[in-house]
Amino acid sequence: LSGETADWRSLAHRTQFDGIHILKGRRAIRVDVAGRTVDAQLSETKLTTLSYDKLLLGTGAIPVWPAIHGVDVPGVFVLHTIGDSFAVREYLDAVNPRRAVIIGGGYIGLEMADALTRRGVEVTIASRTPTVLPTVDTEFGALVAEELKRNGVKVSTSVDAHAISLTQNTLRVFGSNDFELDCELVLLAVGVRPNTRLGLEAGLKVGAQGAFLTNRRMESGAPDVYVAGDCAETWHRLLKRHMYLPLGTTSHKQGRIAGENTMGGSSEFAGSLGTQVMKLFDLVIARTGLRHDEAAREAFQPFTVESVMNDHKAYYPGATQLRACVTGDRDTGKLLGAQLLGAWGAEVSKRLDVLATALYHGMGVAELSDLDLSYTPPLSSPWDPVQMAAQAWSAKLGTQAGLPARDFIKGR
Amino acid sequence: LSGETADWRSLAHRTQFDGIHILKGRRAIRVDVAGRTVDAQLSETKLTTLSYDKLLLGTGAIPVWPAIHGVDVPGVFVLHTIGDSFAVREYLDAVNPRRAVIIGGGYIGLEMADALTRRGVEVTIASRTPTVLPTVDTEFGALVAEELKRNGVKVSTSVDAHAISLTQNTLRVFGSNDFELDCELVLLAVGVRPNTRLGLEAGLKVGAQGAFLTNRRMESGAPDVYVAGDCAETWHRLLKRHMYLPLGTTSHKQGRIAGENTMGGSSEFAGSLGTQVMKLFDLVIARTGLRHDEAAREAFQPFTVESVMNDHKAYYPGATQLRACVTGDRDTGKLLGAQLLGAWGAEVSKRLDVLATALYHGMGVAELSDLDLSYTPPLSSPWDPVQMAAQAWSAKLGTQAGLPARDFIKGR
Repeated sequence: LSGETADWRSLAHRTQFDGIHILKGRRAIRVDVAGRTVDAQLSETKLTTLSYDKLLLGTGAIPVWPAIHGVDVPGVFVLHTIGDSFAVREYLDAVNPRRAVIIGGGYIGLEMADALTRRGVEVTIASRTPTVLPTVDTEFGALVAEELKRNGVKVSTSVDAHAISLTQNTLRVFGSNDFELDCELVLLAVGVRPNTRLGLEAGLKVGAQGAFLTNRRMESGAPDVYVAGDCAETWHRLLKRHMYLPLGTTSHKQGRIAGENTMGGSSEFAGSLGTQVMKLFDLVIARTGLRHDEAAREAFQPFTVESVMNDHKAYYPGATQLRACVTGDRDTGKLLGAQLLGAWGAEVSKRLDVLATALYHGMGVAELSDLDLSYTPPLSSPWDPVQMAAQAWSAKLGTQAGLPARDFIKGR
Repeated sequence: LSGETADWRSLAHRTQFDGIHILKGRRAIRVDVAGRTVDAQLSETKLTTLSYDKLLLGTGAIPVWPAIHGVDVPGVFVLHTIGDSFAVREYLDAVNPRRAVIIGGGYIGLEMADALTRRGVEVTIASRTPTVLPTVDTEFGALVAEELKRNGVKVSTSVDAHAISLTQNTLRVFGSNDFELDCELVLLAVGVRPNTRLGLEAGLKVGAQGAFLTNRRMESGAPDVYVAGDCAETWHRLLKRHMYLPLGTTSHKQGRIAGENTMGGSSEFAGSLGTQVMKLFDLVIARTGLRHDEAAREAFQPFTVESVMNDHKAYYPGATQLRACVTGDRDTGKLLGAQLLGAWGAEVSKRLDVLATALYHGMGVAELSDLDLSYTPPLSSPWDPVQMAAQAWSAKLGTQAGLPARDFIKGR
């Protein structure tokens, strides 16, 4: 929608599927688990029945349509499928809206604010949460809001949109806190929920958040039926339980595990850490593991330290500030989670991945200093910023505990 | 020397040393281990004797002056200390050389080629090895040479420089393979050797490559004498033995361990993986662990696969090619080492660090696909390139072994 990608066809992750036969134009409408068949609709009147040995349900998620009066008027869109984006693009081309309101301050809402701003549309984000991007700490969310404003996006937080009206060619959005704004385009981006109708009717079980239950082999519990992706729950590697955490990377992993197991393999999903990253204008924001508040709700004793460092040696041109938030457990010293925020080009995403890899292995925060990471002045420091952030965590924990310096250098 | 850093003072890693008292202008000339004293020279005629409880020798390395006839003529320099760089800079400012020959194709030689090219000097590298940057595979070295040539640097490999003559204001460098070239500046960058005189005279022991022996606590073996940095050997985490591998990151880690232990701690150096990165013009080249040939000389069964991938989704503007070389053990499936080469800005360095972190933990190559790494189209793919490279390794190993597809997806 920003116009940065010339051909939508290039958006497909893959177009060739070695050894996989794709049946197009058939909508699965019924699964008979006992009979091991799937009924698929070929047209409005024509059905076909497919037999299976193993079945994998990857029905994904569907966007949440919020309970807002008037979401069905023209000019109001959700964004989930390629088809949704075609509808928005056609509308953009036809109406050439000057102003847009995006309801929702999560990843999709923010990415759309970026895209529409690049097209020259005046964008306002109306977010229900007190800061945008609620998947990161509020301090980070506030910095994200600053980046939005720096690029001309208006941000209204703690706004519960409750109605949209259409008068002539103008949409008016009403919300809590006296929010009232005219525009020509409204995008709804308030999240997704698992698409489970087919499986539910076949007797599959879902969890508290409505996603298919599964084990780490991606077995649904129904005989020979596997589930994977945004319709299914996810094993969380740190919390050691299943939850609903729909992410593209997780879907790819679950699909691979389920695919192997349907073919007779015995793979287990290693678990998600909830690793996420987004680029917003010239900023990159990433997280992995648990935030302080998330860890505090679990059986952890979180301790969190924020650090600000240069991404590389200040004397080399182009150094930018990198902000890290490291959460570890005060009792065990283990890393629990981290957030990074910095400039696009400052290797924020793959620095976060060093922390995600550390988290995968259950490393202690202090142990991060033992990693043999790469250094050259244009790209880092002899201690990489992730190690400096870890050292700051250890130092602050030690100071708080009143320990002499040498007892906290390597953790308690 | 490139002029990119305005003030040389900013090159110092640190200028403040909490709780550390620095005695300047005193050259340690003698250590008496039995008497626990150090004699330091204050001036040509004045000595002072310092007593110690614990001694840490961090005497670093000194540049190798190659056995070349005429290295002592004006206009020939080594580059190791800040003082060396002042001498070169003064010469550059005074003589304004049009042409330079750099003898040595390692990190320093290449970085100086980059710096002098930026100053407008015509640079020729004369490297003894068949490709430049011999710390990476020859295929990568050839790509590095291409980057040099693209930026106007001439590259002469397999050249053993044996003489330098000065006629009027012109230096002539002679080498094997009929190498003969005129220039106004010669830089010698053929490596370093440990600076151990002080310790040797005090009775400390050195290993095969002349560096101080040490254990993982950085104890030298002499009572209460510790060693760290480029004067000492390094514990290699994969090879599980000490060797000489002088690197800035390692020195920082060893210094920290030695510092803690002199203060009564009991830290052990976790070991080096030989992780290195360099930026050369617009290219970044990094390595960690063992190359194929290095692994083959040890008790490993290396298997190596090279992959070329986009650094991020091709549909998002600015995607560049990333080249990965993954070496793993055919018998155990463990990762042994990796090299990455790609564009500056493609997060090459921190991608390598994900592999370095995996290597630290002894991960299997196939297990890399289990890592929950961050993804957004401008920065990666749902499988990060490091995971795609790992998957290519597993697939090729499986094909070679004649295994059916499903048996090699997760390794053998």
